[in-house]
Amino acid sequence: MSERDQANPPSRTAHGVNSALKDANLKRLRRIEGQVRGIHRMIEDDRYCGDVITQISAVRQALRAVGRQVMHNHLQHCAADAIRGDPDEAEAMYTELLDLMDKNAG
Amino acid sequence: MSERDQANPPSRTAHGVNSALKDANLKRLRRIEGQVRGIHRMIEDDRYCGDVITQISAVRQALRAVGRQVMHNHLQHCAADAIRGDPDEAEAMYTELLDLMDKNAG
Amino acid sequence: MSERDQANPPSRTAHGVNSALKDANLKRLRRIEGQVRGIHRMIEDDRYCGDVITQISAVRQALRAVGRQVMHNHLQHCAADAIRGDPDEAEAMYTELLDLMDKNAG
Amino acid sequence: MSERDQANPPSRTAHGVNSALKDANLKRLRRIEGQVRGIHRMIEDDRYCGDVITQISAVRQALRAVGRQVMHNHLQHCAADAIRGDPDEAEAMYTELLDLMDKNAG
Repeated sequence: MSERDQANPPSRTAHGVNSALKDANLKRLRRIEGQVRGIHRMIEDDRYCGDVITQISAVRQALRAVGRQVMHNHLQHCAADAIRGDPDEAEAMYTELLDLMDKNAG
Repeated sequence: MSERDQANPPSRTAHGVNSALKDANLKRLRRIEGQVRGIHRMIEDDRYCGDVITQISAVRQALRAVGRQVMHNHLQHCAADAIRGDPDEAEAMYTELLDLMDKNAG
Repeated sequence: MSERDQANPPSRTAHGVNSALKDANLKRLRRIEGQVRGIHRMIEDDRYCGDVITQISAVRQALRAVGRQVMHNHLQHCAADAIRGDPDEAEAMYTELLDLMDKNAG
Repeated sequence: MSERDQANPPSRTAHGVNSALKDANLKRLRRIEGQVRGIHRMIEDDRYCGDVITQISAVRQALRAVGRQVMHNHLQHCAADAIRGDPDEAEAMYTELLDLMDKNAG
């Protein structure tokens, strides 16, 4: 599976997106991309494993922070719409949220 | 702190590095860099939040897998040397390993 | 702070509880209590550290499963009520859910 | 599988155990057992789901802290012995430590 395919599975879109939040997330992701390149360089340079692991952990935390913002947006828009909708739609959203929560915990 | 500074704190190096493992890790990190760019595009395109969160989780898992390989190398070389060394050095390494384990769990 | 105090901070109650789910959770917690006693015995008997850590991990997973059920109930009742309520109440609930999600990830 | 069986799989023992650490861990586990009973009571009393989830998270953290102590003991004794032993034994221990680390992260 190519990177593009992996990043674009079904192609559903978000119901609503806060534009300041969106900009902040895009900036964070650019920084994360740079941090990943930094780890690449550290490994090329045979840097101390403990420092590499510390840096990997920092990037994982940064990704989790983006995930939290995306989840906030999800709750405010798609999830809220579903929860205010009919019972089946609401129940499907609860299960989706629980699954996303488990993913976030990984 | 600039990205370069963050990626290069003290500048200690690894005692020994398995070169096949190193190549595999460098490849994985290139793929992760592409995946981060994919998430950037997903957010630009207002893609469904649940899909973005799923993809963030996949990248976090991929980073954890690199961390595991780096930790394997660390155990085989620096950590093993310290543990076979004098008691103070060994004890300092146990604490370092516990701290790295906690970071890996985050 | 005594155990009782810790377990009973403000004393808010749940808006609604599915009674079959409640029974299942109470059973799971009895089993978890027994598993914790099992770990106590393992440590008393100087059992192999790797086995103790494996068992601790199993109990942590079992607790996470109870947390997921409690979160499901929370979404169906208190959270849904708040999200269907006025905007301030809904927004406070989104923040609460994000915080609970982070706790669940720990 | 009964609780006893689950807690007693093969019956390997630890090479060495620090006795002050052992006592501290036994005390922590008694407290954790009480906390699990506290969560049982909270669910019986239909306490607010958010408070239950917060308390579950506290117990999971407490278990992780015990796991860290057990891992410290493991590193100092069984793991150190294996790492100072022949290469096959050392390599098997690295894999075991990586697996325990992944369990600890769960």
